[in-house]
Amino acid sequence: MLDDIDSTSGKTFTYVIQSLIVLSLVTFSIDTLPDLSPQTREILSLIEMITVGIFTIEYILRLAVAEKRSEFVFSFYGIVDLLAILPFYIASGLDLRAIRIFRLLRLLRILKLVKYNAAISRFRRALGIAKEELLLFGMVAGILLFLSAVGIYYFENEVQPEHFKSVFHSMWWAVTTLTTVGYGDMYPITAGGRIFTFFVLMIGLGIVAVPTGLVASALSQVRDEDTRAQQT
Amino acid sequence: MLDDIDSTSGKTFTYVIQSLIVLSLVTFSIDTLPDLSPQTREILSLIEMITVGIFTIEYILRLAVAEKRSEFVFSFYGIVDLLAILPFYIASGLDLRAIRIFRLLRLLRILKLVKYNAAISRFRRALGIAKEELLLFGMVAGILLFLSAVGIYYFENEVQPEHFKSVFHSMWWAVTTLTTVGYGDMYPITAGGRIFTFFVLMIGLGIVAVPTGLVASALSQVRDEDTRAQQT
Amino acid sequence: MLDDIDSTSGKTFTYVIQSLIVLSLVTFSIDTLPDLSPQTREILSLIEMITVGIFTIEYILRLAVAEKRSEFVFSFYGIVDLLAILPFYIASGLDLRAIRIFRLLRLLRILKLVKYNAAISRFRRALGIAKEELLLFGMVAGILLFLSAVGIYYFENEVQPEHFKSVFHSMWWAVTTLTTVGYGDMYPITAGGRIFTFFVLMIGLGIVAVPTGLVASALSQVRDEDTRAQQT
Amino acid sequence: MLDDIDSTSGKTFTYVIQSLIVLSLVTFSIDTLPDLSPQTREILSLIEMITVGIFTIEYILRLAVAEKRSEFVFSFYGIVDLLAILPFYIASGLDLRAIRIFRLLRLLRILKLVKYNAAISRFRRALGIAKEELLLFGMVAGILLFLSAVGIYYFENEVQPEHFKSVFHSMWWAVTTLTTVGYGDMYPITAGGRIFTFFVLMIGLGIVAVPTGLVASALSQVRDEDTRAQQT
Repeated sequence: MLDDIDSTSGKTFTYVIQSLIVLSLVTFSIDTLPDLSPQTREILSLIEMITVGIFTIEYILRLAVAEKRSEFVFSFYGIVDLLAILPFYIASGLDLRAIRIFRLLRLLRILKLVKYNAAISRFRRALGIAKEELLLFGMVAGILLFLSAVGIYYFENEVQPEHFKSVFHSMWWAVTTLTTVGYGDMYPITAGGRIFTFFVLMIGLGIVAVPTGLVASALSQVRDEDTRAQQT
Repeated sequence: MLDDIDSTSGKTFTYVIQSLIVLSLVTFSIDTLPDLSPQTREILSLIEMITVGIFTIEYILRLAVAEKRSEFVFSFYGIVDLLAILPFYIASGLDLRAIRIFRLLRLLRILKLVKYNAAISRFRRALGIAKEELLLFGMVAGILLFLSAVGIYYFENEVQPEHFKSVFHSMWWAVTTLTTVGYGDMYPITAGGRIFTFFVLMIGLGIVAVPTGLVASALSQVRDEDTRAQQT
Repeated sequence: MLDDIDSTSGKTFTYVIQSLIVLSLVTFSIDTLPDLSPQTREILSLIEMITVGIFTIEYILRLAVAEKRSEFVFSFYGIVDLLAILPFYIASGLDLRAIRIFRLLRLLRILKLVKYNAAISRFRRALGIAKEELLLFGMVAGILLFLSAVGIYYFENEVQPEHFKSVFHSMWWAVTTLTTVGYGDMYPITAGGRIFTFFVLMIGLGIVAVPTGLVASALSQVRDEDTRAQQT
Repeated sequence: MLDDIDSTSGKTFTYVIQSLIVLSLVTFSIDTLPDLSPQTREILSLIEMITVGIFTIEYILRLAVAEKRSEFVFSFYGIVDLLAILPFYIASGLDLRAIRIFRLLRLLRILKLVKYNAAISRFRRALGIAKEELLLFGMVAGILLFLSAVGIYYFENEVQPEHFKSVFHSMWWAVTTLTTVGYGDMYPITAGGRIFTFFVLMIGLGIVAVPTGLVASALSQVRDEDTRAQQT
């Protein structure tokens, strides 16, 4: 019944659990806000206790109905479910900071939200079609990032040693520039560095953007095939 | 006659009304400029009165020619038209600030500008084709935004507590980074945060950009089908 | 002979003229540099005189060989050629600033560089195919820019009146944000403004980016048709 | 055996060499870090010596097994291999700075990492298909960059002479704006400059982004052809 998405009770159960996951994520986020009043903190830890309680009941239920218990315990979602509730029982004696980090594991549960979607298999097939190209572009993008970092390091290091300290620091510049994020915390000021940036961008924009286009066209192709298969 | 786009008088009427909408939007914008001279303000309120007057006449005309009056009054554009003129009569006694906010409703009228376009139905069909993929990518993008915000919060909160105050504040960073806007008001400075950003961007750019490619290819497909249907 | 791109002398002539255009653009750019030495200025004005001289000879030659002189004089490139040389003779008595602005007209000559390219007709046909969609997206993008500007004005004006002074100032923010340029000179700081930006970006990115994908797929389609036409 | 990717020993050899290249790049990067302890420097130069030693042995081996020695020496990878090891022997007597720059040549070896990939030939064919369009868009993008730089120079030079010093400085603005990087080191502040930027971006975004879409669709087309050829 628990996973029977077609029955009414199964549906309700799934929706309740997923709402609780979202609720638990919201309280997790609120908890990070500085200057919370003690009352708010109390309400948050109350919601925390209730959601973890329900998640524990759900885990025990799933364990009870599972045909092969060990199989469920060591399945991906079995481990995720356990990791999502375990920190609460273990970490309650430790300091706050540590608990917070453990809580992060509960985020894995959100993966369940995307479990039952027909479009995922199509996406996987599209990735399969474009696999080789994606690998090639990934590799070339990596090489380009490194070469850009080395290049800009030689151009800018002498003039801005505080920003372009090393090739590693320049790598950060390369990442923010080639993805066109451009925070503005690091940018070339020498003529050479700027001309270098121009050429790197001309080549790099394509290398970063083409894979997106490839995935999109592979997805359309897969959808096309499915539509034709349904018609015949 | 009012909506008869094919007759000359109907066309003229539509163009006049649409020009008045644009004019009314321009005066609305000018009105927000600080340090306007009293004379300019007077001219603006004069234009305001005239446009609202014409819109009122248009509304009454439409009401008069409507086959079923109640149907028109409660239709989408009937409500929009009423909301566009009502604030002027109601709010004239209230303070300026309130009037301004009510005026915003008139913007809804601009939707009429796009009412008579053949390409819209094709766009809708394209959205229909790519619906499932768009939903999936939307969900994954949402999850990724949240995970990025939580991740960067753990990396940067200790070093920059004034910028990465909470998961909510980090969410703003995630939005500006994954859309590659990159204002530069918040950016990671720790090595861990920067490496995390690199991986988030590698995955995230595709997730934000692929839907665009999907819509574009779905649109081409729909246009293709239409062209073929016309040829046969 | 002047336009006979196939003959050797015609080719040489075309290349010489185009090199001179590029040279003239480079000197134009150098001329804008502050703190130039008087010697450099002299060399620049010498190159200026020589290039204008050659352009004048070219214009007279073209006029001489034209079958119908008046047709050439009033043709697009006839006017461009005249406007490119005329300012030099007229403006030499005026002040420097004015000359500079007139010189800008010479840039129009660079259009000749792209005159003889087969890919242009394909690009035009692709634009023709995607025309309706481009118009629709252009209109919607315009409306979205305006609505974004109005929205952010209401969210941010009170908190940052120096940045979000009016709807017109907010429009600049909308342009830099929806194109993902994100200079960082204006950005929302209120929670409402940031959530608003998130939703605007979600819708806006697609509206700005889809037309590009449309043109790209229309171009591939046109190229496809041409390839097939050549094969049969 | 050295290039025989199918045999086990050949595979191992290739992986060892490629790992050494990556290791050598990592040490190269670490070497640029400021404030390294003398011990770290010593370890780095030790690794340096070992890797160059192995690369030298590899070069001699390749030379020994080559059918035509002079052919290998003057082949692309023959020159790259020599350039990758030569600087170490020559430059050891010179100052540190010079050595570093020579070391950069070793980066060329990384090209070997992408040598054995089937997707490259498809990428080349895709570039061949889209060649004319890419050239056209490249040229138009170049012209647009120049015109944008000249335009913004006239709008902003008087108000911000320290930022928009000359057309060359404005070119940097044009590059960062049209690629949507937007560092925020230079941006228009006049109303004219902002409206100009708006129009430049409307045209420019497409011109910079369309080539990416073209390459992506050409790549899908090539992959399609290959899939069909395999099926028949």
